[in-house]
Amino acid sequence: MAHPDLDPDVLDARLAAAKEASYRLATATTAQKDAALGHVSRLLRERAADIEAANAADLAAGREAGLSDGLLDRLALDERRIGALADAVIDVVGLDDPVGETVSGRSLPSGVRIDQVRVPLGVVGAIYEARPNVTIDIASLALKSGNAVVLRGGTAAERTNEVLIAVLRDAFEAAGLPADAVQTVDDYGRAGARHLMQARDYVDVLIPRGSAGLIRAVVDEAKVPVIETGAGVVHMFLDESAREDWAVDLVHNAKVQRPSVCNALETLLVHRAAADRLLPPVLDRLEASGVTVHGDDRVRALRPTALPVTDEDWATEHMSLDLSVAVVDSIDDALAHIRRYSTRHTESIVTNDLGNAERFLNEVDAAAVIVNASTRFTDGAEFGFGAEVGISTQKLHARGPMGLPELTSTKWIVRGAGHVRA
Amino acid sequence: MAHPDLDPDVLDARLAAAKEASYRLATATTAQKDAALGHVSRLLRERAADIEAANAADLAAGREAGLSDGLLDRLALDERRIGALADAVIDVVGLDDPVGETVSGRSLPSGVRIDQVRVPLGVVGAIYEARPNVTIDIASLALKSGNAVVLRGGTAAERTNEVLIAVLRDAFEAAGLPADAVQTVDDYGRAGARHLMQARDYVDVLIPRGSAGLIRAVVDEAKVPVIETGAGVVHMFLDESAREDWAVDLVHNAKVQRPSVCNALETLLVHRAAADRLLPPVLDRLEASGVTVHGDDRVRALRPTALPVTDEDWATEHMSLDLSVAVVDSIDDALAHIRRYSTRHTESIVTNDLGNAERFLNEVDAAAVIVNASTRFTDGAEFGFGAEVGISTQKLHARGPMGLPELTSTKWIVRGAGHVRA
Repeated sequence: MAHPDLDPDVLDARLAAAKEASYRLATATTAQKDAALGHVSRLLRERAADIEAANAADLAAGREAGLSDGLLDRLALDERRIGALADAVIDVVGLDDPVGETVSGRSLPSGVRIDQVRVPLGVVGAIYEARPNVTIDIASLALKSGNAVVLRGGTAAERTNEVLIAVLRDAFEAAGLPADAVQTVDDYGRAGARHLMQARDYVDVLIPRGSAGLIRAVVDEAKVPVIETGAGVVHMFLDESAREDWAVDLVHNAKVQRPSVCNALETLLVHRAAADRLLPPVLDRLEASGVTVHGDDRVRALRPTALPVTDEDWATEHMSLDLSVAVVDSIDDALAHIRRYSTRHTESIVTNDLGNAERFLNEVDAAAVIVNASTRFTDGAEFGFGAEVGISTQKLHARGPMGLPELTSTKWIVRGAGHVRA
Repeated sequence: MAHPDLDPDVLDARLAAAKEASYRLATATTAQKDAALGHVSRLLRERAADIEAANAADLAAGREAGLSDGLLDRLALDERRIGALADAVIDVVGLDDPVGETVSGRSLPSGVRIDQVRVPLGVVGAIYEARPNVTIDIASLALKSGNAVVLRGGTAAERTNEVLIAVLRDAFEAAGLPADAVQTVDDYGRAGARHLMQARDYVDVLIPRGSAGLIRAVVDEAKVPVIETGAGVVHMFLDESAREDWAVDLVHNAKVQRPSVCNALETLLVHRAAADRLLPPVLDRLEASGVTVHGDDRVRALRPTALPVTDEDWATEHMSLDLSVAVVDSIDDALAHIRRYSTRHTESIVTNDLGNAERFLNEVDAAAVIVNASTRFTDGAEFGFGAEVGISTQKLHARGPMGLPELTSTKWIVRGAGHVRA
């Protein structure tokens, strides 16, 4: 769709309305927020036909614009997917409300009492691409944690998102909460996204979800604090002492179970002294599942059918059934390779050597470091968080899988009885 | 001093060296780090004459450049101040090392064990102005929490900081830790500071310390994540039911005890129904301590000697014995005024009404919200943190007084026995 020229005053008015609404949400009870979520779920089903009609228009426009089949699939919402979305919203009702939790507290020597309690962040901005389910997902999680949202869901899903945002706003109102807690900048296209990224006075945090390119662009352009999620060039190192059965199972599970996600394996490193023993069964199992192996010279000496690996491969998140494989001389070489190419998401070792396991755990700098388990465990649901806002690959505020508490901040409550500082 | 043209390769080499050193520091034991701190303290005393000589040159240049007396005082280091700095470093030895603390942990249903442990942030950048004590202060706290530092201490203190940085680097080496964990960009002046602010590949977090202008400039220019500290337009609201003795003591303590700091009071709001009762004794006590009152019309009706308050005053952190005072019609008006002008640092109410106290605590959005105590309590030492890196006025990562744990991140340690994801 064509977008009108950006009118900063119109957008600022929306952002200010979101900020104002965030104060109302911050003091809403869990029961009120859960009631709003119930209305979201109900309205999604009630308006399924409208959603499908808008989605069909987006899909038609997308096909005309030459979107790939993969993108069109992500964009598509049918009755079954809408039902699944409605169910997922009810799952959020079941999550603990983090707001109001006392994180720490004590009485100071003077008798002054201090308590650190969880509060919402305020206004959460989300920037994502052509996945209308994220509209409902992020708004539900933000609502449960007491935050207003400003959404930028991408031009390809614009008509669908318009209907979904109406669902959200109507649901909030039905529960007595301010509709203005849900805002969009989609109608101003990219200029709207840029405005959102600069809006430090109104937006407390920006969460980009999508491709590495999208995340990079947001990190580069934003003045609002960003939580960087996502990209995973994930390694597994098979140490000299690795058990063969574990090596075969773990590499296979990490690479094959769901190759398009960020915790899937991209690079396998094998200790020289274990290469003859481990590589044949590991690669047999992978190839039986359709994996394309890109190997260095020593790998290709053992497996001539492997493609030659390139320097670029080491830095690439393939998100496909491709795996880069190298033989390394030592754990030191494995650690050096990982330090150079890791995106600090998830790194793993398969070993029976306690010293090497501990060294790997201590020295590798990543959100999750794993011994003798699949890299696919780095996941909010697997970690028991119930929901996942994303997987943070940065070090500030949140690192690794983010649940609802990561959508909150804290404030200090100080209670005295006329206490002055000496 | 004149600075050479920026050579980005030279600076990147330093930043890369800091990053490399940060990996060594991350696995250093507490004993090693404490030994290095011991050497810092010792070398400060041993080289006091060198430090004083360099500082005298900075002071002479500063006087020539027309620096204010206040700035010159902050810049000055004599033997007594150097001794106090050396003592403060030993205080850091006594603090708990946050690195390695298990923040949370559990066994997943599959038997996989996950533990979230504290790790250093990595490389901490610090940008501050003309206060050479910050060089030692921030480097000591960063070292104790396992972080490398890159410092930008301002042109006015350049010669002093050069000597202090040599102290730090020599102390690290004497303890068997990498000297490269301490780096400076001062020799490239402002261009060096700008380079540091852009260095996302090397620097994990940037902490600006100093004037509101400095902090704003860093927030605006930086691509590296920033922890915003500082500016406090701090309010106190005297509710209708406030006790007179508490009101007099709390306003006086909050304004007068140390007017130049961020938790000092800047604006006093008084409920209309309490103005006649409270304002005379409160203002008498303030004026006896030399406070200049800037009042609105209703304040000046009661106290004609008060200066007229301006719109600008409400948004100003005076950092002096000036106080803006208004009479408000209700707690709603007080909350609205605070929402408009608060810098989200510290806000307070004096009241005997439980409902109003709870409402104020719930609705005010600030790092610290205080009932019936002085705003001067918002402080790392008062909160029992032992050290204070600064007071964060943002919501991500850290909010309020920051101690050593706020200089850390976490990582997830995952241990399995051949576990794959189903």
